[in-house]
Amino acid sequence: MVNDLDSIYNWMTTSRIETLVDGIFAIAMTLLVLSIAVPDISRVASESALQQQLWLLWPKILSYVLSFWILSMFWRVNHQQFYFIKRTNPALITINVCWLLFIVLVPFSTDLIGDYPNYFTANLIFQLNLFFAGILYYVNWFYAVRKGLLDEKMDKTTIQLMSRNNLIFPILSIIALGLAYYVDAWSSLVYLASPLLKKIMEKI
Amino acid sequence: MVNDLDSIYNWMTTSRIETLVDGIFAIAMTLLVLSIAVPDISRVASESALQQQLWLLWPKILSYVLSFWILSMFWRVNHQQFYFIKRTNPALITINVCWLLFIVLVPFSTDLIGDYPNYFTANLIFQLNLFFAGILYYVNWFYAVRKGLLDEKMDKTTIQLMSRNNLIFPILSIIALGLAYYVDAWSSLVYLASPLLKKIMEKI
Amino acid sequence: MVNDLDSIYNWMTTSRIETLVDGIFAIAMTLLVLSIAVPDISRVASESALQQQLWLLWPKILSYVLSFWILSMFWRVNHQQFYFIKRTNPALITINVCWLLFIVLVPFSTDLIGDYPNYFTANLIFQLNLFFAGILYYVNWFYAVRKGLLDEKMDKTTIQLMSRNNLIFPILSIIALGLAYYVDAWSSLVYLASPLLKKIMEKI
Amino acid sequence: MVNDLDSIYNWMTTSRIETLVDGIFAIAMTLLVLSIAVPDISRVASESALQQQLWLLWPKILSYVLSFWILSMFWRVNHQQFYFIKRTNPALITINVCWLLFIVLVPFSTDLIGDYPNYFTANLIFQLNLFFAGILYYVNWFYAVRKGLLDEKMDKTTIQLMSRNNLIFPILSIIALGLAYYVDAWSSLVYLASPLLKKIMEKI
Repeated sequence: MVNDLDSIYNWMTTSRIETLVDGIFAIAMTLLVLSIAVPDISRVASESALQQQLWLLWPKILSYVLSFWILSMFWRVNHQQFYFIKRTNPALITINVCWLLFIVLVPFSTDLIGDYPNYFTANLIFQLNLFFAGILYYVNWFYAVRKGLLDEKMDKTTIQLMSRNNLIFPILSIIALGLAYYVDAWSSLVYLASPLLKKIMEKI
Repeated sequence: MVNDLDSIYNWMTTSRIETLVDGIFAIAMTLLVLSIAVPDISRVASESALQQQLWLLWPKILSYVLSFWILSMFWRVNHQQFYFIKRTNPALITINVCWLLFIVLVPFSTDLIGDYPNYFTANLIFQLNLFFAGILYYVNWFYAVRKGLLDEKMDKTTIQLMSRNNLIFPILSIIALGLAYYVDAWSSLVYLASPLLKKIMEKI
Repeated sequence: MVNDLDSIYNWMTTSRIETLVDGIFAIAMTLLVLSIAVPDISRVASESALQQQLWLLWPKILSYVLSFWILSMFWRVNHQQFYFIKRTNPALITINVCWLLFIVLVPFSTDLIGDYPNYFTANLIFQLNLFFAGILYYVNWFYAVRKGLLDEKMDKTTIQLMSRNNLIFPILSIIALGLAYYVDAWSSLVYLASPLLKKIMEKI
Repeated sequence: MVNDLDSIYNWMTTSRIETLVDGIFAIAMTLLVLSIAVPDISRVASESALQQQLWLLWPKILSYVLSFWILSMFWRVNHQQFYFIKRTNPALITINVCWLLFIVLVPFSTDLIGDYPNYFTANLIFQLNLFFAGILYYVNWFYAVRKGLLDEKMDKTTIQLMSRNNLIFPILSIIALGLAYYVDAWSSLVYLASPLLKKIMEKI
């Protein structure tokens, strides 16, 4: 007998969470480009003036590419997690909503480090944003494993492998957070070490 | 025999309404972040100036988080409703379109209370926006129950439980609307009482 | 034997067109709200000043509601058409892309009549935009019927009913286009006559 | 035995990549319209002033229509490719993410040539953007064929036909890139030759 609404959620599939997540990622990834503004016509009188103005956009373009890449990494892990997570419950949805709250902030914090690449405060906010997003999706996986929301055919080895894989992002974000104090905007390059860390995780 | 187009709708599934709803929520939730503007470069000359400017963003960030949360609550209830609603008809689509019209206004009214947190008019508009959204999704459920658009396997107890659950939002929005006169922006915190009200509703 | 790529398209289902259409509608409907700008803080010093500024937003809000409603009507007809259209081909995709090109322009032309409600040129552009969108979705249905892309179980009566139903929008847009010369922005109210025209169409 | 996470991806279907792609295209196509700004009220005092201001929007509208069309062509080929690609792996997702990175830049580079139609630098950036997008989706197909990610029922003739079809865009983008030096903005019209090139490709 069903006697509360929470248990109704337990029958529900995850397809609509996936649609919402895909939608939010599609928009967040596209909004990143809005941070790159076309040079103002009033400042451009010649070909070389345009080239000069476009040249000034480099920090913006770099932070765009980096954030696009980081968001795509988050999307991939969500994609992988929900390949195995077959059922949902209110708490799992709450975790995902909190996670999305930080994902949606990425265009803002990207814009911030694009404008202030050499300010520690800007880098701290950007790295904290990624840190919370990284922690929350680890929590998502951890919770799903614990509550038995996974595909029942999934074996123990794969679960362990996935759990370790889901640690990559939190670990990288802690390192980047630490480095932010010393090397400003460059600390984000730590995220490019993700494939390397993945190989190491699989060997342990 | 089919003799008008309205009856054609009655065979239709709800999958496309769900896609549209998910899309609109994904965008509305992401647009919220656009209300948080990166501090203007011309005003920032030092680390402490940036920190000061970012500090001024607090009311914006608070209203972002609150609206994100409220939108996610609406999405969850829609998710839950359409888990049971299996068929659609023109009137049901109309109700949903009207509901979405108020959902899409949320980024605007959030922006408004972010800019004018201490103005009664701004708070009234924000609360009215949520009030109409809350009423309309209750109407959606009420209509679907009455017209027999639900999953046939659904038992009476669950329907009653869902009906009561769908009253939470309208009730909270009336309280918040009343409180707006006395406590301005803080009245929105009433929405955090939602899990509590849910438990009470299940006990009755 | 398959000997050209066009025939490959003929096996394809319509699900991805539907996802793209739903996505574009979700965004176009949400972008409408961006045309309503929150009153500028520098102009607002008191409660009554805010109320006055908000009052000035009425033409914007009216054109928002109207355009939202019109877009939702377009979405409904697309929803209905693709309930019956089961296969696709390159020409059908081209028709839909052209149609979407005009759908995406709706936020622009809505913004235009919101700013210039009493200018004939603005109203002409808005009405022409809807007119082309209306014509193209009729062409979409007409083409799908002719090329046999419909569900084979669909009977002749329903096809005829649908064909007449799909004429409602082109007819209304021609009337609104004509009226635009005499009554400016009010001519759009013609679209509210849609349910009436639908009843008439079914009786013929 | 599964012993690394990459092999888990090999079982995964492509449905979520498709949702993300559809979402990003829907938004990129809709964002294009944001490059067309409604004439500033302060500059418009009469009907003829409005017409004059709207007339100045022509280069913007032309670049909007062209970019919308080009994006729709990219979407169509993705649609066609993923009709045959049935499985995915990490490298395929990486290719698609890189491809999307250039797709998302299209609204920016469209805005750029809309503002600077007669500047070689602007045209070069626009054409390079399309060139990389064109190359990457060819790589996508090439990789999927090589790694056997296609539908197994697909015959050799169709694969060859598709491979040649996927060369159309890279070829056109190289021609347009070359022409950009001589004819500026007009070089994009090369993309209208796509149906012609398709016919030629099928005859070879």
